[in-house]
Amino acid sequence: MKVSNTVEWAIHCCALLAGLPEGVCLTGKDLAEFHGVPHPYLAKALQTLSSDGILKTVSGPKGGYNLAKMPNKISLLDIVLSIEGNSSCFECSEIRQQGPTALERSNSYKQPCLVAGAMWKAENVWRKELDKTKLSHLLERVPLEVDPRQLKKAQNWLKKKRPSN
Amino acid sequence: MKVSNTVEWAIHCCALLAGLPEGVCLTGKDLAEFHGVPHPYLAKALQTLSSDGILKTVSGPKGGYNLAKMPNKISLLDIVLSIEGNSSCFECSEIRQQGPTALERSNSYKQPCLVAGAMWKAENVWRKELDKTKLSHLLERVPLEVDPRQLKKAQNWLKKKRPSN
Repeated sequence: MKVSNTVEWAIHCCALLAGLPEGVCLTGKDLAEFHGVPHPYLAKALQTLSSDGILKTVSGPKGGYNLAKMPNKISLLDIVLSIEGNSSCFECSEIRQQGPTALERSNSYKQPCLVAGAMWKAENVWRKELDKTKLSHLLERVPLEVDPRQLKKAQNWLKKKRPSN
Repeated sequence: MKVSNTVEWAIHCCALLAGLPEGVCLTGKDLAEFHGVPHPYLAKALQTLSSDGILKTVSGPKGGYNLAKMPNKISLLDIVLSIEGNSSCFECSEIRQQGPTALERSNSYKQPCLVAGAMWKAENVWRKELDKTKLSHLLERVPLEVDPRQLKKAQNWLKKKRPSN
């Protein structure tokens, strides 16, 4: 059971975009360069985030990607579900309806399987926790937890990419 | 991000074994038959559960698998981690150490990445929830949530398999 590494890239990209000065965008190539990840794979993830209303694309010479909503309106869950899809981690194959003890009519099974119910309950707790964490919460912790030398390098990199901002 | 369907089989097998009368075992073939799942795949999962101390094997003509611990000492988390492995669902590839803003020394990164920290926090909440649910909790709910006709069929099946019990 693994979250794909594209999720990691997607969250980092969204967090970076959340921290940009008002109106500044970055292209897919910029985002790939900043994070040292392959552009073709990242581009697909950015398109997905865009079609799910998490990112927006801005056209023009200074265009690129930006957040489609405020950082306090985008949660880690939004990003995870956009990249991984919204289906449950636990797929109930209804094995209680297989084998020699199965009831003949499938409509005899009115309640969800006990096992599936317990697994889904835990998954909902996980989803709620991810939904509580917004991009704005990550941003607040950047000055406390990211090395100031790295923040400086990021600012310099951005100045080169978007000299007028 | 998916839990493998072997997890579903494994939890159902453990729950069934938890509900057996004292001293009764079932073989891997019995468990596969009861759940209508392919024996070779299930056998591998049962061996894993056994080597992780969740199941035990009893030899002799009435032998087979049984729980290695009381049902209130085995959680869904124990079973999930046995089948899926104990590694985190979110693997941090340290992309903050990639690209043009990375610091030269990797020992500059003393704290975990903010993104990974948030993902792991949510995973821990999921794990705790799974750990709270013991096999004994599932058993308590069987008479309330499983159709009595299915329970009767299960008892009859067991009588045929283990006539002396």
